[in-house]
Amino acid sequence: MARSIDLAVIPGDGIGPEVVSQGLKVLTAVLPQDVKLESKEYDFGAGRWHATGETLPDEELEQLRQHDAILLGAVGDPSVPSGVLERGLLLKLRFAFDHFVNLRPSKLFPNTATPLAGRPDIDFVVVREGTEGPYTGNGGSLRTGTPAEVATEVSVNTAYGVERVVRDAYERAQARPRKKLTLVHKNNVLVHAGSLWTRVFERVGQEYPDVTTDYLHVDAATIFLVNDPARFDVIVTDNLFGDIITDLAAAVTGGIGLAASGNVNPTGAFPSMFEPVHGSAPDIAGSGKADPTATILSVALLLRHLGLDAEATRVEEAVTADLSARDGAAPRSTDAIGDAIAARVAG
Amino acid sequence: MARSIDLAVIPGDGIGPEVVSQGLKVLTAVLPQDVKLESKEYDFGAGRWHATGETLPDEELEQLRQHDAILLGAVGDPSVPSGVLERGLLLKLRFAFDHFVNLRPSKLFPNTATPLAGRPDIDFVVVREGTEGPYTGNGGSLRTGTPAEVATEVSVNTAYGVERVVRDAYERAQARPRKKLTLVHKNNVLVHAGSLWTRVFERVGQEYPDVTTDYLHVDAATIFLVNDPARFDVIVTDNLFGDIITDLAAAVTGGIGLAASGNVNPTGAFPSMFEPVHGSAPDIAGSGKADPTATILSVALLLRHLGLDAEATRVEEAVTADLSARDGAAPRSTDAIGDAIAARVAG
Ligand SMILES: CC(C)[C@H](C(=O)O)[C@@H](O)C(=O)O
Ligand SMILES: CC(C)[C@H](C(=O)O)[C@@H](O)C(=O)O
Repeated sequence: MARSIDLAVIPGDGIGPEVVSQGLKVLTAVLPQDVKLESKEYDFGAGRWHATGETLPDEELEQLRQHDAILLGAVGDPSVPSGVLERGLLLKLRFAFDHFVNLRPSKLFPNTATPLAGRPDIDFVVVREGTEGPYTGNGGSLRTGTPAEVATEVSVNTAYGVERVVRDAYERAQARPRKKLTLVHKNNVLVHAGSLWTRVFERVGQEYPDVTTDYLHVDAATIFLVNDPARFDVIVTDNLFGDIITDLAAAVTGGIGLAASGNVNPTGAFPSMFEPVHGSAPDIAGSGKADPTATILSVALLLRHLGLDAEATRVEEAVTADLSARDGAAPRSTDAIGDAIAARVAG
Repeated sequence: MARSIDLAVIPGDGIGPEVVSQGLKVLTAVLPQDVKLESKEYDFGAGRWHATGETLPDEELEQLRQHDAILLGAVGDPSVPSGVLERGLLLKLRFAFDHFVNLRPSKLFPNTATPLAGRPDIDFVVVREGTEGPYTGNGGSLRTGTPAEVATEVSVNTAYGVERVVRDAYERAQARPRKKLTLVHKNNVLVHAGSLWTRVFERVGQEYPDVTTDYLHVDAATIFLVNDPARFDVIVTDNLFGDIITDLAAAVTGGIGLAASGNVNPTGAFPSMFEPVHGSAPDIAGSGKADPTATILSVALLLRHLGLDAEATRVEEAVTADLSARDGAAPRSTDAIGDAIAARVAG
């Protein structure tokens, strides 16, 4: 268990800084006296890019590497061309720090607005592969801009890459009460990658006989996510399918305003990064309207990753209690929500 | 306008034959006296594959080619390995007959069970590309079965292929009252294909100044499909994204039991194929429980494709009237639903 945490903080753009400061408030409140918290801020995002043209210079990547973990608020702004910060910063971090487990819990908390009728009992986690699939940048285009243009995107899948994330997912499934793991892919069409994923999933599964397994095509999975989300416990899937179904999962559990995520390297070889799934929401930046809950739940993931399980649980329980208490209450400011949750964890 | 229809019919497996016969019943009832309907049945699917090992022999493909259109019920059975019928029959047809427009209307009809609270007003159509993307079978695997295995899937996108489907989507958007077209892709990550799609979308759009356009990343699109599906009018997207979002769209509009689809070659060079999105549901086959509505709506798509617009509209109106009348009524058999809709269109 970590007795000191050296944290890199990337507040980012828009509401990023506001939600991150609430996350840090709760983190400070929950840590035991003997755990020393140090943190250093890094200036990345739209602001930095506009000012300097830089997204993530190598020297700062090197500095980030020295930290125990990274907390990110949100980066992006409509003024930055699509893809610049995604690839130059967010994906660069995932690849550089080998964040092969992209962790996305989905839970329907009390008093949150789900678009689903009947408020199903939703509590699952998606283990999304983070370093392969069509996210590798492989592919290209030929005769660009002419009527004869051909553009390709190559999804790269390796036994090495698939096995480590599948194994991680089995471990997480085994540690949960229901012990159920669903593989989501499209192995009836994407036969090469699908065959690799399916074979590895079955082979590794033999080491986890107490875990119940299941397979769904990605299209069918989206149907169940709205019709019967309670069926899911742990889902393991590739990078692109994971991107799609986790946003859908967030939507059915009250919106990306509450969704936390971790870009995790479970080996500890590199710092893992934790961030809310929502964007920088420039339209409400500075207004005190941003909900810091997704960031605070990301802090819980960070704590658990660092071995501070009791503290992680305290944060999650405080968030649940806070949401339960929201019923009918007037909307609170970013700061007030952070204060309330910090008060609960400090208990 | 077609004054005779030479139809190929593929009843298929499970509930396929039952729903197809209701589709044919309605088709016969709606056609004017002077339109001659001829049809020929083809035996493809799990049954045929088990008996002969064949999915779609070349001679029969050649025979199918001679027809004006194809109506398919459903193929598949758990006893057939995943992918065999998908690739050997369904995808083979799409590629052989160059079905580059995969048409999937999504409408929330009266008295249908949507999982969404508040019954939003849903009425949009997805124009999914049908002959490119990661569906081309490009890719492969190396060192298969070893710890050093690499498996790839290549998404192939051409200016030729993207432009024709994008143009088709603009035409459809222009013909609808709201005239709105949304491109769904993931151009911030899949930069090569994404750039091609985005450029073609913008360039072709200049020819349709009265069509309002919009862009969404596929992950964000899934959020809107549950949170605000009323925003969509026409969506154009690639083969894989289209596969995923149309199943989700079907789920939010009452399930795939009502979803119709067309695999269309708008040039008429090859016969187009129409089919319900649902599967063969072997568990209820023969019980009279199958709902033929998706097949009947597929017949409406077929009629419109053949230029019989008034008849297509009559079928759609009959389905709407039939669904409106279902309120509180006892469940009806497959046959009874077919009879009721046939009576309305003959009306
Ligand atoms: C910003 C983008 C690169 C990213 C992704 O596609 O992975 C985002 O959508 C996410 O899910 O974290
Ligand atoms: C059966 C399968 C090949 C097919 C697809 O992936 O296109 C199906 O899911 C569909 O949407 O028509």
